[in-house]
Amino acid sequence: MTSIITLTTDFGLKDPFVGIMKGVIFGINPEARIIDLSHKISNHNIIEASQAVSFSYRYFPEETIHVVVVDPGVGGGRRPILVLSEGQFFIGPDNGIFTPLYNYDVLQKVIHLTNKDFFLPSIESTFHGRDVYAPVAAWLSKGKDIKEFGEIINDYVTISLPKPKMMDNALVGEIISIDNFGNAITNISMKDIAEAGVSDIKESLKVICKDIDISVVGHYAEADNAGISSLINSFGYIEIFSYKNSVSENYNITTGDRVKAVLIRS
Amino acid sequence: MTSIITLTTDFGLKDPFVGIMKGVIFGINPEARIIDLSHKISNHNIIEASQAVSFSYRYFPEETIHVVVVDPGVGGGRRPILVLSEGQFFIGPDNGIFTPLYNYDVLQKVIHLTNKDFFLPSIESTFHGRDVYAPVAAWLSKGKDIKEFGEIINDYVTISLPKPKMMDNALVGEIISIDNFGNAITNISMKDIAEAGVSDIKESLKVICKDIDISVVGHYAEADNAGISSLINSFGYIEIFSYKNSVSENYNITTGDRVKAVLIRS
Amino acid sequence: MTSIITLTTDFGLKDPFVGIMKGVIFGINPEARIIDLSHKISNHNIIEASQAVSFSYRYFPEETIHVVVVDPGVGGGRRPILVLSEGQFFIGPDNGIFTPLYNYDVLQKVIHLTNKDFFLPSIESTFHGRDVYAPVAAWLSKGKDIKEFGEIINDYVTISLPKPKMMDNALVGEIISIDNFGNAITNISMKDIAEAGVSDIKESLKVICKDIDISVVGHYAEADNAGISSLINSFGYIEIFSYKNSVSENYNITTGDRVKAVLIRS
Repeated sequence: MTSIITLTTDFGLKDPFVGIMKGVIFGINPEARIIDLSHKISNHNIIEASQAVSFSYRYFPEETIHVVVVDPGVGGGRRPILVLSEGQFFIGPDNGIFTPLYNYDVLQKVIHLTNKDFFLPSIESTFHGRDVYAPVAAWLSKGKDIKEFGEIINDYVTISLPKPKMMDNALVGEIISIDNFGNAITNISMKDIAEAGVSDIKESLKVICKDIDISVVGHYAEADNAGISSLINSFGYIEIFSYKNSVSENYNITTGDRVKAVLIRS
Repeated sequence: MTSIITLTTDFGLKDPFVGIMKGVIFGINPEARIIDLSHKISNHNIIEASQAVSFSYRYFPEETIHVVVVDPGVGGGRRPILVLSEGQFFIGPDNGIFTPLYNYDVLQKVIHLTNKDFFLPSIESTFHGRDVYAPVAAWLSKGKDIKEFGEIINDYVTISLPKPKMMDNALVGEIISIDNFGNAITNISMKDIAEAGVSDIKESLKVICKDIDISVVGHYAEADNAGISSLINSFGYIEIFSYKNSVSENYNITTGDRVKAVLIRS
Repeated sequence: MTSIITLTTDFGLKDPFVGIMKGVIFGINPEARIIDLSHKISNHNIIEASQAVSFSYRYFPEETIHVVVVDPGVGGGRRPILVLSEGQFFIGPDNGIFTPLYNYDVLQKVIHLTNKDFFLPSIESTFHGRDVYAPVAAWLSKGKDIKEFGEIINDYVTISLPKPKMMDNALVGEIISIDNFGNAITNISMKDIAEAGVSDIKESLKVICKDIDISVVGHYAEADNAGISSLINSFGYIEIFSYKNSVSENYNITTGDRVKAVLIRS
């Protein structure tokens, strides 16, 4: 085991909740190395959390353990689970948060965490991050066999994630997030574009959002300072931006807005 | 020694002050493991810092070192201290920030940090986090004997912390903090309730805040979506919430508001 | 090598970008210890980032590796560089961000990072933090010889940083940042003052900002609660403050405002 544990929550950074989870982990495995992915996921936003994790995990070493706690149903009937997928481990609530991982052919296992030997001894808890997920991650990072944590299930919860659709000669998708720079990230990927038969992106692609025709460039500084542009970002998705400005603010673009990638076949 | 050091400050996350403290610690003990509890304590708010630490320390391994720097009097006559309590170490200013720890029978020692061999060599500093507390924590984490740091004192400063009072058939307390989800945490604990002779909480307790009768449920998802509810939270305190909403915003509840827990004896 | 790597970016804390950089580092060097200096540098603000790093690095052990990614020109012609200065390493874009380090006599080397063996295998990336700087820092922390990363250059980019000027009997400088407490930090240092022939600061210095005569005290608590005061801060610079208040808000003082330090020679 690598003993690397990442944390993704909607707990924010003011309350000591995240620090407490780390205390629990170090109490079980003092050798763990803990990395924060984000604790500023919008409250209860399962889709946002699932995107943060699915964009990130491939940059971590094999067998990294990703703990994700965005969990409006905590304390209710909702099951805690451990997912083995893509050579990594994912721990969190069975509320669909791991849906992007269920789309891979190589999905290995989903385990319902039932063995209370690996939980903190709390009753009727409303803080599973501390009492369930942190200690399970710590025990797993120490090399405990996954069979000990619970039983394999197949009826895990999935959620519907927005996907681009081919309509006429265009891929129609949407803005799925606005980043720290005000850049608007779409759900249209280079893979989607390639499957539609486009090879040279700059020559044969036109992006439309809010009725604006948006040119496609290679990198940020290549764009005109004041205007609106797009590029294939470092995760392989179409991203709309304004050089050194917030395209989200300046053009009023927000999550859920429709985006068309028009394919100009030569 | 576990070499685990937690940090709690009002320094915020933009300035590099916290990173600098970590640099000082690693310069003395490269094997230290440093955990952030919170750096978003409201400026100069000693009560808020003392709550964050007192809710958190019991989830850390024995002999963890907790550094707390909320210190409006830095550079003045105020003494830097090291507190040994509950099997853990606490380092910070003698301004009452460790008052919750002084309430335990098992309080062991309060040491006035006078030995400048363990400080950075600065004159008239206004940054004791860097020059006093970080290096002392680092040396302590390396196993230095506490006797070397200074002299035991008994006249350490305490502050008055809000505590619930029994009035007629009710425990009268107050809101002590609003968390990241807008939940309102009271200072009325399960222990207070048990001592008042209530055993089954849902049957025999009614919570009143802002003239609203608030029902008590077992966990968040059990509550009606739109309304106001309460539960015993994961730290053992009455918490007022609105499922998937901010009860603080929607019902205008804030720190200092009065809360009554009415005990219905059967 | 100490294997200590600090990170300074304008990536913010919501997006998982910083966590991804750490994943890349741990994938190459699982023994690295990573410290966040700040991820809340104002977007694209090279001067702010250079100040954060130049105030911080001396508190870190020798051979610490400082990665700084504030990089509006990412993906363009701008070169990635490695700077050896003051016994430490600095990695980031060649956009002038390391200018404060170029002012030292002991500057050793600036290396243009050209060896793609130490990059992640991405094409036309817009995320050099992940694909260039994180992996180079990780390989360097493992002890790779700096000669392997690229060629020494001498035409590295510098930017103009605001410096105080002597005019009549006053040092005229400016506010270079507002900290988390609303304190206004100037670019006038104790060294500047000493070079101007002032030895006892309180007796022989008067600070003027916004036409207000501001007294100089020894530490925060020494000041009158309500008013405006100044002191030599813990980094050796004149700082204007209001005890337990934000002088920036209360007196409308902001970055770029002119400050005069009048020298009263006895």
